[in-house]
Amino acid sequence: MRMVDLIARKRDGHELSKTEIDFIVQGYTNGTIPDYQMSSFLMAAFFRGMTPTETANMTMAMVASGDTIDLSAIEGIKVDKHSTGGVGDTTTIVLAPLVAAVGVPVAKLSGRGLGHTGGTVDKFEAIPGFQAEISSEQFVRQVNEVKVAVTGPTGNLTPADKKIYALRDVTGTVNSIPLMASSIMSKKIASGSDAIVLDVKVGAGAFMKDLDSAKALAKAMVDIGNNVGRHTMAVISDMNQPLGYAIGNALEVKEAIDTLRGEGPEDLHELCLTLGSHMVYLAKQASSVSEARSKLEEAISSGRALETFKAFIAAQGGDASIVDDPSKLPVAAYRIEVKAKEAGYVSEIVADSIGTAAMILGAGRATKESEIDLSVGLMLYKKIGDEVKPGDTLVTIHSNRETVDDVIESIYESYTIASGKVERPVLVHAEIH
Amino acid sequence: MRMVDLIARKRDGHELSKTEIDFIVQGYTNGTIPDYQMSSFLMAAFFRGMTPTETANMTMAMVASGDTIDLSAIEGIKVDKHSTGGVGDTTTIVLAPLVAAVGVPVAKLSGRGLGHTGGTVDKFEAIPGFQAEISSEQFVRQVNEVKVAVTGPTGNLTPADKKIYALRDVTGTVNSIPLMASSIMSKKIASGSDAIVLDVKVGAGAFMKDLDSAKALAKAMVDIGNNVGRHTMAVISDMNQPLGYAIGNALEVKEAIDTLRGEGPEDLHELCLTLGSHMVYLAKQASSVSEARSKLEEAISSGRALETFKAFIAAQGGDASIVDDPSKLPVAAYRIEVKAKEAGYVSEIVADSIGTAAMILGAGRATKESEIDLSVGLMLYKKIGDEVKPGDTLVTIHSNRETVDDVIESIYESYTIASGKVERPVLVHAEIH
Repeated sequence: MRMVDLIARKRDGHELSKTEIDFIVQGYTNGTIPDYQMSSFLMAAFFRGMTPTETANMTMAMVASGDTIDLSAIEGIKVDKHSTGGVGDTTTIVLAPLVAAVGVPVAKLSGRGLGHTGGTVDKFEAIPGFQAEISSEQFVRQVNEVKVAVTGPTGNLTPADKKIYALRDVTGTVNSIPLMASSIMSKKIASGSDAIVLDVKVGAGAFMKDLDSAKALAKAMVDIGNNVGRHTMAVISDMNQPLGYAIGNALEVKEAIDTLRGEGPEDLHELCLTLGSHMVYLAKQASSVSEARSKLEEAISSGRALETFKAFIAAQGGDASIVDDPSKLPVAAYRIEVKAKEAGYVSEIVADSIGTAAMILGAGRATKESEIDLSVGLMLYKKIGDEVKPGDTLVTIHSNRETVDDVIESIYESYTIASGKVERPVLVHAEIH
Repeated sequence: MRMVDLIARKRDGHELSKTEIDFIVQGYTNGTIPDYQMSSFLMAAFFRGMTPTETANMTMAMVASGDTIDLSAIEGIKVDKHSTGGVGDTTTIVLAPLVAAVGVPVAKLSGRGLGHTGGTVDKFEAIPGFQAEISSEQFVRQVNEVKVAVTGPTGNLTPADKKIYALRDVTGTVNSIPLMASSIMSKKIASGSDAIVLDVKVGAGAFMKDLDSAKALAKAMVDIGNNVGRHTMAVISDMNQPLGYAIGNALEVKEAIDTLRGEGPEDLHELCLTLGSHMVYLAKQASSVSEARSKLEEAISSGRALETFKAFIAAQGGDASIVDDPSKLPVAAYRIEVKAKEAGYVSEIVADSIGTAAMILGAGRATKESEIDLSVGLMLYKKIGDEVKPGDTLVTIHSNRETVDDVIESIYESYTIASGKVERPVLVHAEIH
């Protein structure tokens, strides 16, 4: 088998066999296939696409390239949730204790990552004492005991995906649905869960800008999961503006606590119930999605969700008293209010620029080496559709530096105030099974 | 400017500017753009194509990457001829002295190359004493004096093309019309001629298998030439079977002499007159193509073409008496006749396999290190449409080894004899201006 012939077959629209895809992924990972042939193949795949079978084979070849996590010592059906990424997405912090509270085992491998705020691990580390680096023995035992545990990146998962993604990033081949789908799903499958709920974001603040593309990506991922025996479904949710109010690490933990208490932002609350009820249903802890939703609502109203969050924090060495007294979380030195200058209705919040403003404050990493300031960030008090009057607070900046003119300016640039009434955006656009 | 953005622009169907194409070609040539980005770009260009302006800019960027030949010391309009390559193509050996005989200055840079037989330089070196490696002073003086000179590869022409071609060869991006066209034309333009006649081969023995593709390649090359101020036209000629009778170095020199005497194979004679008359016309040595053709016919019948060939050979140190006594050319030790086994009409000659049979005898190079045997080769006495009877000689093998069962077998496999009459193939399919 010669790589140049496989490139030509993909270029000419033929379907590659499992053996051929294994040859490509293995060869590229171990270095017998050079970058320049792989990038040419990836560009051909960009134009020709990949069939569902090819995409599933590509995914499993990437899974096979490294370690896989064995969660079989954990009782029950392990369900993972994955979001394609947006701004101010606090769902993971809410969902982990929430679904655990109704019996779903949550064995969460999370990263730190680059971006507007830290990754899930960084956010939990805003809780004083919280240890994300736990042994695999503790991880398994803790999930069995309190139903939820979080740990940082472990083992050498999907090295093929890492190498291929790095190449795609510099060769104009990121934006290919089968390649995106196989990249995401390979990591989820290697992480060992039995079922997967995907939150595919769509809109100006998401990677997928339009509903058709988001649906296509969701469909490709759901097909992969179901093709390889992992029950998978996707929710397409709106990311035309940041989700919830908080953008920042400690601020999001505080917002998650509010949400677990039933007092969170309406959009975050609703999305958590939607995603969570599918997780509960796939974990067979409810016989229907609507029954699952009722169980989650009950876990919130009864306080069981909050209790589970406390038990989880304590199990990982954290100070659970922050749940009742969030002022114990890291607090920034300054709060600066950004006030509306005119009357009207919020018609647009450019999620990307708002996120970048939070990153400039220190909430996220621009490079791997950046230090995160867990206390800083933004609270958005006005969302799309909200009425504003001059002097109303749009956003509160939580900062450790006194002068934040650059951040204020970019917040004003991100907000558009229209004179007439504006509809609130639809939150959940579709479900893909 | 970042290469990844230029890849994305080409991928998304935008036209790249001259500055952008210069950046790519220069960056790749000097190593600041890595192979893996260039191959991804080339695959995007394969799918998206390139506009005539982009293709011309790509060509000129490759020309600018290395040396260019300055022929301004040679009087008159220098016209080059280029063939896209076939089997047994003796046209260059005929055309060089033929058009020189009617006043066209022929300043020919030729290669050795790989393939079924040697390159043009190898073929001329079958003439005892012939020196292809001449100084540039002699080259210029000789063209001014006898109107024709041939020299081997000189200077560092189009290093960008060499590097890009080597990458295309291993990344499935050879078969792209704008990339093929710019590669060929960059070499021709760097070689310094004022005008170019292209012989684009089409058919089973050529790279372009169908007329539409051949026309598209021809059009792309003609557009480049005219875009950059080099008068260019193309003839689409048939390569469903080898051209002429001879395949081999000395054998083709002998066949060229026959043709210059007016006694060559009909197809070779006709194609040389067609290509030659366009060369003469572009060189402004005739006021119409048909007048040019008459002049060439007169040069053959008067013996002036042969005299020019003799003067040319003598000027390059060769033994011009081979023209009157071709037995002085290298002769193989054995002649083996391959005879028809059945009656009928030749309906197919697989040019590629016939060419490979000649290469196996030693007429061509399989690798750069191979030694060529100038004396060996094949003479095809039956061509498509010819009637054959059992015992008629199809092919004579000229060999320096006695046993040639492998060659005989592949000749039988190459020939198809049909029972009913077969039309002779059309020789010249189209002209592209």
